[in-house]
Amino acid sequence: MESLSKKVFLKLEMPNSQNTKGDRDKIFNALKEKYGNVTIPYKIIKELYPKCREANFEITVTLVKRDYDWVVTRVEAGDTTDKNYGLCVDLGSTTVIMRLVDLNTGDIIAEESIFNKQIAFGEDILNRIFYTRNSAEKLYEVHKATVDTFGELLDIIGEQTGVKGDDISIMTVAGNTTMTHFLLNIDPWTIFQTPYTPIFNQAGFIKADEIDIPINGYVYCFPSVANYFGGDVVSGILFTEIHKQQSLSAFIDIGTNGELVMGNEDFLVAVAGAAGPALEGGISKFGMRARKGAIDTIKIVDNEIKYTTIQDGKPLGICGSGIVDLLSEMLLNGWVDFSGEIKDGASKNIIKVDDQLAVEYASREESENHESLIFTQSDINQFLKTKSAAHTMVAFLLEEIGLTLDELEEFYVAGAFGTHLDIEAAVTIGMYPDLQRDRFNCPGNSSLKGAYKLLMNRNLLSEIDDIAQRINYIGLEDAKDFIGKMRAASFLPHTDIDNYPSVKAKLIKKGLL
Amino acid sequence: MESLSKKVFLKLEMPNSQNTKGDRDKIFNALKEKYGNVTIPYKIIKELYPKCREANFEITVTLVKRDYDWVVTRVEAGDTTDKNYGLCVDLGSTTVIMRLVDLNTGDIIAEESIFNKQIAFGEDILNRIFYTRNSAEKLYEVHKATVDTFGELLDIIGEQTGVKGDDISIMTVAGNTTMTHFLLNIDPWTIFQTPYTPIFNQAGFIKADEIDIPINGYVYCFPSVANYFGGDVVSGILFTEIHKQQSLSAFIDIGTNGELVMGNEDFLVAVAGAAGPALEGGISKFGMRARKGAIDTIKIVDNEIKYTTIQDGKPLGICGSGIVDLLSEMLLNGWVDFSGEIKDGASKNIIKVDDQLAVEYASREESENHESLIFTQSDINQFLKTKSAAHTMVAFLLEEIGLTLDELEEFYVAGAFGTHLDIEAAVTIGMYPDLQRDRFNCPGNSSLKGAYKLLMNRNLLSEIDDIAQRINYIGLEDAKDFIGKMRAASFLPHTDIDNYPSVKAKLIKKGLL
Repeated sequence: MESLSKKVFLKLEMPNSQNTKGDRDKIFNALKEKYGNVTIPYKIIKELYPKCREANFEITVTLVKRDYDWVVTRVEAGDTTDKNYGLCVDLGSTTVIMRLVDLNTGDIIAEESIFNKQIAFGEDILNRIFYTRNSAEKLYEVHKATVDTFGELLDIIGEQTGVKGDDISIMTVAGNTTMTHFLLNIDPWTIFQTPYTPIFNQAGFIKADEIDIPINGYVYCFPSVANYFGGDVVSGILFTEIHKQQSLSAFIDIGTNGELVMGNEDFLVAVAGAAGPALEGGISKFGMRARKGAIDTIKIVDNEIKYTTIQDGKPLGICGSGIVDLLSEMLLNGWVDFSGEIKDGASKNIIKVDDQLAVEYASREESENHESLIFTQSDINQFLKTKSAAHTMVAFLLEEIGLTLDELEEFYVAGAFGTHLDIEAAVTIGMYPDLQRDRFNCPGNSSLKGAYKLLMNRNLLSEIDDIAQRINYIGLEDAKDFIGKMRAASFLPHTDIDNYPSVKAKLIKKGLL
Repeated sequence: MESLSKKVFLKLEMPNSQNTKGDRDKIFNALKEKYGNVTIPYKIIKELYPKCREANFEITVTLVKRDYDWVVTRVEAGDTTDKNYGLCVDLGSTTVIMRLVDLNTGDIIAEESIFNKQIAFGEDILNRIFYTRNSAEKLYEVHKATVDTFGELLDIIGEQTGVKGDDISIMTVAGNTTMTHFLLNIDPWTIFQTPYTPIFNQAGFIKADEIDIPINGYVYCFPSVANYFGGDVVSGILFTEIHKQQSLSAFIDIGTNGELVMGNEDFLVAVAGAAGPALEGGISKFGMRARKGAIDTIKIVDNEIKYTTIQDGKPLGICGSGIVDLLSEMLLNGWVDFSGEIKDGASKNIIKVDDQLAVEYASREESENHESLIFTQSDINQFLKTKSAAHTMVAFLLEEIGLTLDELEEFYVAGAFGTHLDIEAAVTIGMYPDLQRDRFNCPGNSSLKGAYKLLMNRNLLSEIDDIAQRINYIGLEDAKDFIGKMRAASFLPHTDIDNYPSVKAKLIKKGLL
């Protein structure tokens, strides 16, 4: 195991007249041959006496690999090498997911997620940023909320497993640029002000107690590349390894923001921007996150809507994958036209609400709260912006690198959204490109998985810096005619249907073209 | 200048849409090419905003060289590279000497010394160790006394020069094993208990605030080799470079303890032990340190004692060099015999006090306190132990390495004692070997000078570890028949006068042999 942290059992000579080396130096000498650059901090030296002698110099040393050395974080009496734990965290602005990992085996012992307590300072990340502006006290409140989220997750995991913070020597965190700033109690204000530069990209290894994280060791945050291109995406690239392939891959992550990387072993180019809240379900009154009662799939069969819900709950609303399905099915069944306009009278589900057309996908009788669940024309218009942003980012980057869609051999759709989404539907509405379907790859939570990967392979540290270094990031504000291109892409699937031959074929078959 | 700490002025791009790197990363990238492994600690990252932007990214970065990296200790607005200071300290159990050094030029801006405030817990180092035993609170008191000594020196130097702790990024400290333990607030108890092992030899770079030293940077303590062989001697070796010569050298430091190293580029071997308090003037009622009013040289001319005092003060007592002179002159003038016994009637200065013979070297009328200043038979007997220890260590090590005195090309006599001492007299009484006089070398305070040398040459860090590693240390407790050998050497100059041919010649010339 090449984990970021190791435990080493040492059986050293007790002090004797033949060996009068200092306690610290005996430990150092025992480690340096195998580990090279070893640092024993003052705090540890101070604890050695009488600990080592009382333990007859049979001790276990915990080491954490940092950039240039192995640092000793703990010395325990006896052999405790079997208890060697690390954490990896996906620090989302909405949800924080934490895994407890046995560093000896790589086993995932526990995985828990809770909402980010920052939400108390605003659902929208911008509200949190405005809240903390120019106030060290308020910044600390949001920092504290982040750290408390970690603390609660640690408590839950501790309850489940009996593993306490003291036994955890390393934590890897993948989060976006703003989240990482908040975690480190550093003002993210500049990230959202022109020219959109963060205070740091790479923060290096930070002693957990310096940022109030209750573990006995170090915290490593994945570096960001730019304002909208955070450590979570760098972690995702690390996981999918698009940076190591000969063939061209794309990696897209559409959440609150949208990030797209394209490249291979020779180059990496990226765009990112605010994709809009569509895919966290924030567009529609009934949009919701993918939890119990969210409609996650929709089919229109014989002009009737059929849906499923998460955990078979009574319908509460619709999540991202449900929206994509709904739009796709409406298009294929002639309920909307190519511009996304709802066709009045196309179905009994098409109704008028407050002077605008809407589709009712679940009736008052069916829904949990006895409300008619609808998706309105303006919901559709909102959503089309998001889906066209996804399309346009891909088209834009392909143009930038001078390659065509055919040359895109892997298309990674990251995030929870990618996992639940029906690729066929997403292509149908022109959100994702019309590639052979086997070129799509849904790695799931690649941010968390990249953080886990690093935890178990310290050799990736330099690879991470290399990825961040190599990415040629283009801010959408610099992307020429992006708005114009987005407008063309806001059709279903696109103003130029020839970009979507498989969709065109389907529409022809259905007699809609 | 290859100083341990550097200041670098950086003129970086202000954030702009072409350069959206984080503030921290711009600094890192600007430094890494020249400095390689650069660490920017969390505390510094946290301070960057709005500092860098307010300074238009014209900033000065202070870097300290540690074992494996350069660590940033400070970021200031504007160009402050002209203010770049370090300290070196000789941490003695009696006296602490501090130098303030301009790291840009190597100039010594100030040098001050005061008594070690530890003395409040015992003149004798053993009393201090017993005081702190098993009590973290008492240990802290003695630690605090040490640190307060540093603080007072800093205050004095600050008053003189205007340089404050904030402007000082590095301090090198050379002290014996116990002193270094006290400085780091680590119990030195084990050093004086069989098998005499310290808690640490090398402590590495310690953040000054971790040990309450009021500078803004790091503290480096010279490593010890063993209980009685401390960082002060390692520093002395570094200064004299005996470890780099082809020819054989000896380095001896006689203070509270005695340390002797012999060697060259191929080997280093050492003995050390408690030499007794003789040479700090602690033997005699009138023994005193080398300060104003101490008799520091004595000649007997026409059977009359002629002396000088330090700073021409009225005589208060006698310091180490005065004692050596006194003994040497008494021997050469027939006032003592070869066994050190005072000859009654040899001079009007030979008097009887409390049933024992004594020599009065300054009369009641001459002395500051209107006391007769005397050196008694038992003072002599005490002193002979010390001088014979010095001789015996040299003889012992030569025997160990199988070489003869003739092969000893340099004989370094370290410490303030070495500087004031008359070598001729020290050879006459058999304290130092009868070498050609040009082989003697008095480097002065080589402990402080070695600490200064490191301050100005960071490349010596590994050399220091190398010296400490190479020294083959022999505890006097393991030296066979050391006591027997010491007894033979307690004669003036030695039971075997043929060991001292130049002294033999003098005695014959004087008709004493």
